[in-house]
Amino acid sequence: MLAGDLYSFEDLLSEDEAAVVERVRTFLAAEVAPIANDQWSRAAFPSQLIKRYADLEIAGRPGSSLLNGWLALEMARVDASMATFYGVHAGLAMGSIKACGSPDQQERWLPSMAAFDQVGAFALTEPTGGSDVAAGLRTTARRDGSGWILNGQKRWIGNATFADLIVVWARDVADDQVKGFVVPGDAPGFTATKIENKIALRTVQNADIVLDGVRVPEADRLQQANSFKDTAKVLRATRSGVAWEAVGVMLAAYEIALDYAKERQQFGKPIAAFQLVQDLLVRMAGNVTASLGMCVRLAQLQDDGRYRDEHSALAKAYCTTRMREVAGWSRELLAGNGIVLDYNIGRFVADAEALYSYEGTREINTLIVGRAVTGESAFV
Amino acid sequence: MLAGDLYSFEDLLSEDEAAVVERVRTFLAAEVAPIANDQWSRAAFPSQLIKRYADLEIAGRPGSSLLNGWLALEMARVDASMATFYGVHAGLAMGSIKACGSPDQQERWLPSMAAFDQVGAFALTEPTGGSDVAAGLRTTARRDGSGWILNGQKRWIGNATFADLIVVWARDVADDQVKGFVVPGDAPGFTATKIENKIALRTVQNADIVLDGVRVPEADRLQQANSFKDTAKVLRATRSGVAWEAVGVMLAAYEIALDYAKERQQFGKPIAAFQLVQDLLVRMAGNVTASLGMCVRLAQLQDDGRYRDEHSALAKAYCTTRMREVAGWSRELLAGNGIVLDYNIGRFVADAEALYSYEGTREINTLIVGRAVTGESAFV
Amino acid sequence: MLAGDLYSFEDLLSEDEAAVVERVRTFLAAEVAPIANDQWSRAAFPSQLIKRYADLEIAGRPGSSLLNGWLALEMARVDASMATFYGVHAGLAMGSIKACGSPDQQERWLPSMAAFDQVGAFALTEPTGGSDVAAGLRTTARRDGSGWILNGQKRWIGNATFADLIVVWARDVADDQVKGFVVPGDAPGFTATKIENKIALRTVQNADIVLDGVRVPEADRLQQANSFKDTAKVLRATRSGVAWEAVGVMLAAYEIALDYAKERQQFGKPIAAFQLVQDLLVRMAGNVTASLGMCVRLAQLQDDGRYRDEHSALAKAYCTTRMREVAGWSRELLAGNGIVLDYNIGRFVADAEALYSYEGTREINTLIVGRAVTGESAFV
Amino acid sequence: MLAGDLYSFEDLLSEDEAAVVERVRTFLAAEVAPIANDQWSRAAFPSQLIKRYADLEIAGRPGSSLLNGWLALEMARVDASMATFYGVHAGLAMGSIKACGSPDQQERWLPSMAAFDQVGAFALTEPTGGSDVAAGLRTTARRDGSGWILNGQKRWIGNATFADLIVVWARDVADDQVKGFVVPGDAPGFTATKIENKIALRTVQNADIVLDGVRVPEADRLQQANSFKDTAKVLRATRSGVAWEAVGVMLAAYEIALDYAKERQQFGKPIAAFQLVQDLLVRMAGNVTASLGMCVRLAQLQDDGRYRDEHSALAKAYCTTRMREVAGWSRELLAGNGIVLDYNIGRFVADAEALYSYEGTREINTLIVGRAVTGESAFV
Repeated sequence: MLAGDLYSFEDLLSEDEAAVVERVRTFLAAEVAPIANDQWSRAAFPSQLIKRYADLEIAGRPGSSLLNGWLALEMARVDASMATFYGVHAGLAMGSIKACGSPDQQERWLPSMAAFDQVGAFALTEPTGGSDVAAGLRTTARRDGSGWILNGQKRWIGNATFADLIVVWARDVADDQVKGFVVPGDAPGFTATKIENKIALRTVQNADIVLDGVRVPEADRLQQANSFKDTAKVLRATRSGVAWEAVGVMLAAYEIALDYAKERQQFGKPIAAFQLVQDLLVRMAGNVTASLGMCVRLAQLQDDGRYRDEHSALAKAYCTTRMREVAGWSRELLAGNGIVLDYNIGRFVADAEALYSYEGTREINTLIVGRAVTGESAFV
Repeated sequence: MLAGDLYSFEDLLSEDEAAVVERVRTFLAAEVAPIANDQWSRAAFPSQLIKRYADLEIAGRPGSSLLNGWLALEMARVDASMATFYGVHAGLAMGSIKACGSPDQQERWLPSMAAFDQVGAFALTEPTGGSDVAAGLRTTARRDGSGWILNGQKRWIGNATFADLIVVWARDVADDQVKGFVVPGDAPGFTATKIENKIALRTVQNADIVLDGVRVPEADRLQQANSFKDTAKVLRATRSGVAWEAVGVMLAAYEIALDYAKERQQFGKPIAAFQLVQDLLVRMAGNVTASLGMCVRLAQLQDDGRYRDEHSALAKAYCTTRMREVAGWSRELLAGNGIVLDYNIGRFVADAEALYSYEGTREINTLIVGRAVTGESAFV
Repeated sequence: MLAGDLYSFEDLLSEDEAAVVERVRTFLAAEVAPIANDQWSRAAFPSQLIKRYADLEIAGRPGSSLLNGWLALEMARVDASMATFYGVHAGLAMGSIKACGSPDQQERWLPSMAAFDQVGAFALTEPTGGSDVAAGLRTTARRDGSGWILNGQKRWIGNATFADLIVVWARDVADDQVKGFVVPGDAPGFTATKIENKIALRTVQNADIVLDGVRVPEADRLQQANSFKDTAKVLRATRSGVAWEAVGVMLAAYEIALDYAKERQQFGKPIAAFQLVQDLLVRMAGNVTASLGMCVRLAQLQDDGRYRDEHSALAKAYCTTRMREVAGWSRELLAGNGIVLDYNIGRFVADAEALYSYEGTREINTLIVGRAVTGESAFV
Repeated sequence: MLAGDLYSFEDLLSEDEAAVVERVRTFLAAEVAPIANDQWSRAAFPSQLIKRYADLEIAGRPGSSLLNGWLALEMARVDASMATFYGVHAGLAMGSIKACGSPDQQERWLPSMAAFDQVGAFALTEPTGGSDVAAGLRTTARRDGSGWILNGQKRWIGNATFADLIVVWARDVADDQVKGFVVPGDAPGFTATKIENKIALRTVQNADIVLDGVRVPEADRLQQANSFKDTAKVLRATRSGVAWEAVGVMLAAYEIALDYAKERQQFGKPIAAFQLVQDLLVRMAGNVTASLGMCVRLAQLQDDGRYRDEHSALAKAYCTTRMREVAGWSRELLAGNGIVLDYNIGRFVADAEALYSYEGTREINTLIVGRAVTGESAFV
């Protein structure tokens, strides 16, 4: 049981699910945790681990939303960068193909992706349109004979420097609808340039992408993606995933703080014995517990087929807001040592900033929920 | 479905439970809501409603913790004072007798209390010892022949001005243990003076109590209450109840704000269409949803028999903290009209202050959780 | 020196100014403090005190902005209702006549108002247009022979139930400009109905006003008020005044909490000795000190003639936000006793809500500052 | 004028002081700003700039506390690391010699330090005693013939890897008093090991120091430092300096956010035109303005000789708390771009964490103020 799971939410997993979680937790502790700070400080992706994810047998397997969410939590609890790597591959890229690909396309790509023989990326965001995703999308797709020609720019595309398959979203100049294309990483005209100098999720390889006349056969166009609504379906699930990751980061921050508080002595006793330190710990515990309760219910709505955009937007905005508080309090508790990477919390503080902003800023997710509950759009 | 229950937690109730909730909700809307502000402004308790609670058939009936919690939520959503009245009677007073009374005692008192033929109160807090309940308890019980003699003072005792039965906690001068006694409201030497000038929960009749040589037969001493640990068991459940009440207040505040935002026009459109207003609403919605998730899980722990002091202390501290934010945001949204009782929110803002502090302040509940998670006591 | 003035800002007053402050402080302590809670609980204005304000010789006298601000602080520190009474009379009503009246008009009204022989009110806000003051103003003025006829409704007008002179703002149907009129409280067609059931500033007599064909001679139209810009000048100064009042409320809340913390014993020592209590006190002290520093500089800008709308809007929004926190923390520190009026803090908590919203909500003041610093209007 | 100085506090500087500020600002813009992110990302100190600070003619010169504070602000507004370098040298090291050195000692060291021919460091904090500085100080000084022998460990010592003179505080084993010693960086037995893997103030070279039988002649013992009270005097001034630095960081964060908001387009207009963005900007502006007002008054108290520990502790705790909020809001406003160092805000967010914790955590400074205002010590 995780120290921060005060209400034993983990017991809600079935026995089989618990076994999967245990397997993944063991893997993370053994393989990811020991190298996480080093990879992060060097902004280097641990390619040697990619195939190891296949052994976990989790990508693309059917499973409850609770299990999927909990796995995101476990990954982020150890390293939010690696959780993001997995989320981009299994959630965004494989998720797009599953949701918007024809049966043939699913058959063609998903097995090799589940085996991590091919790594996926997802290219939606553009340099000029972070929040205004739908209307602001400028990358174009033009029908040309048996295929399409893509032109445009993408930004922030995770995994894109080494991905084998990139799901690219572009606007069809003919009907103005957003369509999806699976582009190989080595396609002529496709270049992905690593974004340097990040202060968060440094292990994730985000890229600026240029599509300069990239040719894509019609067979590689996702056959069921006919408008932005289809893309939105994928984002909905991804946002839930980030909410779970936020809980994972909170759990890590809480554990780090608790361990430190019990060990660190000041004025002749462990600082855990001071009221001001307990105050920080209990505020953290409250945020963790409430956020977990939210995510667990969200997973039930997902599995019940009653899952709407505002549900995941609310969880994403709320849990990442709480996560930022928790990470800050944990760092505060470690005082000076909190700014040294070796004490672990520094990485989580930094990464929390990325989670807070990606997959829709707090503002955008607020306006998604606001529109749903008021019936009024306030985006512009 | 309640407007603020965005994640449909209500669906977790069984069909039977949902029917009970529906019955109570209908009663509250018909009988309590229309008079709540008037009673509150006059600081007067609506005695005529007491017997109506019997018709609801909820007090003392077996039921899941989820149902009990949800009923507290429903009551507080309409009037936190009446929720408190009910909580004191059915939770604290009946709960004490159930937890600490002998089978005979339970048989003697509980049925008439369930029928609201006799209303209960619970006298633990003292003028000098709010937080330091255990060690600070100064009311004494002295064995005298076949009975006991009680001396001391109590403060903040809800329902006490009109209660038929008051569960009084006193320290046995012989063994220094805290014991429980059921004292009739008209016992010689017992006086209850209404606390005037309250700015919150004004409908609740709190009293300062003086016990001046009150004689209690041994038969009226709760036979299973042998130390403060037994009292603590009752408080544990009560704190969960306050967490649920806090959610009820949040739901009310959210609904009031949402309705107002949709109706109130400024600059030519409903204020619900402004980003700053949606921001308030969505922050509220996040707090409601996360707090509900916490309470629902807490109820499961309760029913699973895995329920510890720190569980309810965490929920009480967290949910009432969030409630205070939500009530404040709702009032903010109503601007000037928010300070007029007729717009409803003013009462909830005020009452939230009482809920925030009673059954253990945020500080005390924090230290209860802090001790559990760190193993260090920081009370003194 | 005030306990909460940790940085001795009071020493910035000149010797003469300090004497005035001392005189007012003595008056407030002797005459207002003893009755404040009682008046508040009865929602009754202490008319007997009106003439006593004349003896203070402060209304309408020239003085630095620092002195005027500090006087508002002192008044609000004892009773925000009486500070509001004074602010409406001396700031809004007299201020309007001073800023927008001809020399003749100033001569005609100001001396008797300075002597409190005539009490003023200020009628700008309307039922449908709280925030959208300028464009939303619907009360009309129609030229009719040698005078004007006013029709419309006003809301929230302080002092209006007993004021002798009400400054009414109305839109000239001829040129669509907002103009100011001085209307006697007994003018035919003028009715002021007290707003009942307030939970804040209960001692202030706010009224709903109906103007039903009220005739006003041209001589009673403020000759220098030609557009809403002139009204805005008055509001600018008033907002600064509310910022100072907010500091006064914070100082009161801090003193109440500090005194209580030193006296209240728990676990065998004054609660002032607990870390969690000191945390509350020091957070309060920080807010008080920083807000005072802001207000003092604002007064200098005012006296230097470099004072713009965004300056007072920022102080109003910021200091009232901090005030709300401080009042809440003080109430939290008093726990249960904090909800009994006799302990004083309850009134300040409630009144803080009114100060937070009047003279422009936080949202409106935010958008005023936002427009100034970004050059973009975001009101609609 | 700085964009974030909405209340024109800068105008409070005298003409001469304003010229100094202008000179420093020009230097910072020309020499420090262009390289700040690069140095930071490489965790490398720009040694080539050291002598350039001498040209500014500010270290060790007499000047008002307002000027000194404003210079700290300007430095931190460009690079908090370089502000820290300067603060350690001119504030802590030179300040110690000035406050605790004999006239001879001052004459011996201060001129060359003012000329940056010798760079100073200040070694007080130890690995085991961050907060418990006084009682926890374990480094020993033992009288030995004409000199002293120092043994012990220090941690977090800024500049120490390249400093020429390190002011070391040690406990005299004879009388148990804390005394100060000036130790050359190349003293036998003195080793300073750079702390690697920092996530904040990366340009500052903090070191773990070992003192292994370091011999110091009596002439190098600070003659006026006889107890910890003398050390505390130095810390008092340093804490004010950090408060000013916090304001500098806030000003930078505000400017970065404002510029970005005006330029970044979404939904067809600059994001500065959105309410939610203005909300962030105005919250920032409020924090900046209030914190500046606090610091300005603090400087007056300093120059008036009425300056106490609780004054600087309050400013340090308050302004760094507000700074953390402001840095977070600015990063939030920049969304994804906020995590790329090139957009500047990332560095300030990270550095804010160090400022928040060094020179006394929020908790310790809270307890210093708490003790002063309540008369009760709550450290243990």
